[in-house]
Amino acid sequence: MSSRLASLEAYEKLINDYDTWLFDCDGVLWRGDHLIDGVIEVLDILRRRNKKVVFVTNNATKSRKSYKTKFDQLGIEAHVDEIYGSAYAAAVYISSVLQIPKTKKVYVVGQGGLEEELRDEGIQFIGGTDPADNTIAPFDLSQFTPDPDVAAVVCGLDTQINYTKLSKAFQYLISNPGCHFIATNEDSTYPTSAGLLPGAGAISAPLRYALGKSPVCTGKPSSTMLDCVKAKVHFDPKRTIMVGDRLNTDILFGKNGGLTTLLVLTGITTEEEIIGPNPSPIVPDFHTQALGDFRIVERPL
Amino acid sequence: MSSRLASLEAYEKLINDYDTWLFDCDGVLWRGDHLIDGVIEVLDILRRRNKKVVFVTNNATKSRKSYKTKFDQLGIEAHVDEIYGSAYAAAVYISSVLQIPKTKKVYVVGQGGLEEELRDEGIQFIGGTDPADNTIAPFDLSQFTPDPDVAAVVCGLDTQINYTKLSKAFQYLISNPGCHFIATNEDSTYPTSAGLLPGAGAISAPLRYALGKSPVCTGKPSSTMLDCVKAKVHFDPKRTIMVGDRLNTDILFGKNGGLTTLLVLTGITTEEEIIGPNPSPIVPDFHTQALGDFRIVERPL
Repeated sequence: MSSRLASLEAYEKLINDYDTWLFDCDGVLWRGDHLIDGVIEVLDILRRRNKKVVFVTNNATKSRKSYKTKFDQLGIEAHVDEIYGSAYAAAVYISSVLQIPKTKKVYVVGQGGLEEELRDEGIQFIGGTDPADNTIAPFDLSQFTPDPDVAAVVCGLDTQINYTKLSKAFQYLISNPGCHFIATNEDSTYPTSAGLLPGAGAISAPLRYALGKSPVCTGKPSSTMLDCVKAKVHFDPKRTIMVGDRLNTDILFGKNGGLTTLLVLTGITTEEEIIGPNPSPIVPDFHTQALGDFRIVERPL
Repeated sequence: MSSRLASLEAYEKLINDYDTWLFDCDGVLWRGDHLIDGVIEVLDILRRRNKKVVFVTNNATKSRKSYKTKFDQLGIEAHVDEIYGSAYAAAVYISSVLQIPKTKKVYVVGQGGLEEELRDEGIQFIGGTDPADNTIAPFDLSQFTPDPDVAAVVCGLDTQINYTKLSKAFQYLISNPGCHFIATNEDSTYPTSAGLLPGAGAISAPLRYALGKSPVCTGKPSSTMLDCVKAKVHFDPKRTIMVGDRLNTDILFGKNGGLTTLLVLTGITTEEEIIGPNPSPIVPDFHTQALGDFRIVERPL
């Protein structure tokens, strides 16, 4: 059962026990374009106490570089090398795990941020933001000449999703021998300030359904994401805590990686889901209302 | 185990044993725009022997009226009242089973044929072919005013699928109390003369995934489709045979309805899938290479 942080001592102990703090962003630091109360102060406390801070996001519409500007706009201190995104994890997976030859290509169902991460890893790609594929004009399969060099299809959240992209991706997956099917993440929904929209998992869902098979996912809760962090940051899993708002991505990700987990209730999950009569099977080690609750350590009651 | 028709007597017996013949269209009568060999002759034999002929299609992009023109173009005799489509079944389900009040509306993710069937049943709808929803421009949830009268979302194959339609449909399903989630059919793929494309099931898949729940499907293999036929055609299930090319739609539909089933191999299913080492759990009563094989009864060897 999850332990609810409730005293100054409990918050102090958590800060003392963990040296590396991994944070999900949306629902933890902000919600859509709104900064969540107390976040800047708490991150500042952690940094002053020499904690290593890492941001781990499933948002694949932005590259790490452009995600950094989101932090800047909201006034949150962050460095590009502290930010890990599912698009970056997908690019690293393709280049380092699959080791697709440099002559091969990836067909992208996704946005500019995913393309930027692929480009930075030296991976050739087609589709994505190409105007030819961003259309709702009818798709004529008989006029389509598939590129035999496409060795993988990678899907991220794509708000320009359409039948041409889905059809091309489907053709590559059924026709190009051994073509890999990769999704940046499987989030069912995407939180905006105005409410929920279909998430990246909903964008790959048509292909998943048409193929009758699931993609390899590189974002949380997959260990691929943690492997990317490990390649750059030295940390002891026993002294590392993952802070998130989603049980099936953030908390599961922490558990899969052997980390301690802390759920905040400023995002998608309600307290009832973890301590109610029908709790989720994914149980965080700790939970608290909001990240801002940690301000108590410098503002004793 | 499925019995392969192999002799004049076997074909003759089938024709003698069944008075009502239900046919799937794509993969049985034609493939894309190509008529399958022998179809016109066999339908003509059945009609001359006073068999009742019914066409049962999951294609929801066309109304029955516009589907009739497809028969005309290929030179196949058919009457509008012999044609039953999944779009028609969806409209009948909404008006007769759900009995949504006439003041309520349906949000359509689908094409003109689905709209035409809804209109014919006197059901108000929005979305569908409305140019405002057929765009890949960004969708801004904060600018969206949901219509409180939307009581159902119905999805069919929609080759103009996009994020605006998916987002609006998702909003209605999570925000309008009791909003029904209906799909015309769950076909994973859609056969064209040039090959397979993602089918209607792939169009509702993002909503299914984002919601974590499945729609009510009105096309084959659902009994809703057979209920629509029963409402208009008197037939004895014991003397009725369903002819199709897909195990999980056509053959399952026949079985669910207590009909005898005949698989043809001119569509999506190979003989290996029914008599190979790992056969499908859905087994037709009979199979034959093509509908045209029945010509043998008037062309003895």
